[in-house]
Amino acid sequence: LGREDKLIKLIKSLTGEELIGDDCAVLPSGMLVSSDMLVQGKHFLLPQMNLNDLGWKALAVNLSDIAAMGAQSEFAVVNIAFPTSMSDDEFEHLYKGIIDCAKTYNCRIVGGDLTGSDALVISITVFASSPQKPMLRSAAKAGYKVIVSGDFGASAMGLQLILQGQLADATASHVMMKHLRPKPRLLEAKELHTACMGEGALMDASDGLADALLQIAEQSGVAIQVEASKIPVHKETVSAAELSGKIALRQALYGGEDYELVACIPSDALKVCEESGFTCIGNVLEGSGVRVLYPDGSEEVLSRERIFQHWI
Amino acid sequence: LGREDKLIKLIKSLTGEELIGDDCAVLPSGMLVSSDMLVQGKHFLLPQMNLNDLGWKALAVNLSDIAAMGAQSEFAVVNIAFPTSMSDDEFEHLYKGIIDCAKTYNCRIVGGDLTGSDALVISITVFASSPQKPMLRSAAKAGYKVIVSGDFGASAMGLQLILQGQLADATASHVMMKHLRPKPRLLEAKELHTACMGEGALMDASDGLADALLQIAEQSGVAIQVEASKIPVHKETVSAAELSGKIALRQALYGGEDYELVACIPSDALKVCEESGFTCIGNVLEGSGVRVLYPDGSEEVLSRERIFQHWI
Repeated sequence: LGREDKLIKLIKSLTGEELIGDDCAVLPSGMLVSSDMLVQGKHFLLPQMNLNDLGWKALAVNLSDIAAMGAQSEFAVVNIAFPTSMSDDEFEHLYKGIIDCAKTYNCRIVGGDLTGSDALVISITVFASSPQKPMLRSAAKAGYKVIVSGDFGASAMGLQLILQGQLADATASHVMMKHLRPKPRLLEAKELHTACMGEGALMDASDGLADALLQIAEQSGVAIQVEASKIPVHKETVSAAELSGKIALRQALYGGEDYELVACIPSDALKVCEESGFTCIGNVLEGSGVRVLYPDGSEEVLSRERIFQHWI
Repeated sequence: LGREDKLIKLIKSLTGEELIGDDCAVLPSGMLVSSDMLVQGKHFLLPQMNLNDLGWKALAVNLSDIAAMGAQSEFAVVNIAFPTSMSDDEFEHLYKGIIDCAKTYNCRIVGGDLTGSDALVISITVFASSPQKPMLRSAAKAGYKVIVSGDFGASAMGLQLILQGQLADATASHVMMKHLRPKPRLLEAKELHTACMGEGALMDASDGLADALLQIAEQSGVAIQVEASKIPVHKETVSAAELSGKIALRQALYGGEDYELVACIPSDALKVCEESGFTCIGNVLEGSGVRVLYPDGSEEVLSRERIFQHWI
């Protein structure tokens, strides 16, 4: 277990709280609540990242947690700690990015706190009404299909290019856009939730596809088998990986920050989900563990050891 | 206007959002939401402050915003960014302080985010059901009485003693306790709200008594007149101020972080509120501005210039 997991276990035992949930807490009233912090130097670099993109991303990663429950975004509270050296224009540029994202996804910003600090920290809390049957990570069953939205590994390659010195420009390429202005999959989540009538497991792959598959398998008590050749990887991710001497599939499995949906759904809902843009990558089986099958017939057992971690 | 006020105006104009409110946002469902961040070096000093006290205070200041609406605390989401040098024991010490406060005030911790950072940042969001008639800052009327809970200036003197090198020990004195482990006035707020049946203006004096009086006067379009001799100041605040060469009444007006309630209520509710421990310090009049009357007959007009600010 990583340190974050260890401390979350500590918190759960100290609080004795059962409402601490998956991507979101579910309050007794049916309200979903989720909260994420972005810290300069840990989650983003300045000045490499454009403040407008950063604002967008800070809200988008929170809305992705709402999508991961099959819900729709409604309200957000935005706390910002920022250096007093940041000018009013820079602050406005940052805040307009948050508002761009909020307007795009019908989320209302209802409050927040501003304070000074040495490093920029953005802490956002989002609220939504829970669907009647929220889709938890623990709801996968043998016989279900494993499906994903979008493509994987692009965000990690976008970050790689920025770290190599390329200008962080969301309009420059697919991989840059995926890293700098990720799109929370709220619409896709809604279509998925409708197609499955709430049956099945769902989460967003903020820490990578491998992490998402492992979490669903562990929490549902099932095995998951996926085919490497079916994992969607964008052609720009492949060429950026080649240029950097990386293997695109490794980035797809372990790269993190793709904010795509990963779901295990009853097979009779598959066709509708595929029409909504989801890709089927494998099957849920009896047993435990996550295996990736390669075209040459070899097999890889995924392990927690390599999981993407932002923060240590 | 301070920079915070200026940026809040900018945010309100950028979002066009009407739900951004007083101490809390009021969601259409009737849910109250409030959020505050505490940043190391801005709101607290380490190692001078005990981590357990800090955890208590981080939640208490948020619950004070709930009290300021006349509501009761229900749920909290706790985000913590902390240096990886912090040990698991230190983290537990901090978190136990948050839980102490949560249990004392019947607040359930339902989620949160943990991340790394250079400085410790605690960002908490609290939720509560709005009373049928929440008490806003804009609801004071001429003829109302001005009342306050507890006493003022103590927290500022506690901080002063710590800055002078005294051990930060919440059990050492009233002024230390008020600075290190402030008590959100949830019970008093409930009694006040019942006594007034929601009529009147209410807020918490997180930025000092002067700030609270000025905000209520401005937002209600009234004048407020208070008697200096009636402002409650604890005897330890008086002696600590004398020892530091400060004037206790200045600390009471401008010191900040007392987290006491300041209200303007119909006079027929005064007696019940006094029985609940509130002190009447003055009257609401037609006009504008806030005046303090001194025993020698002189008068001081309060100004925004001197208001306590954490963060600039």
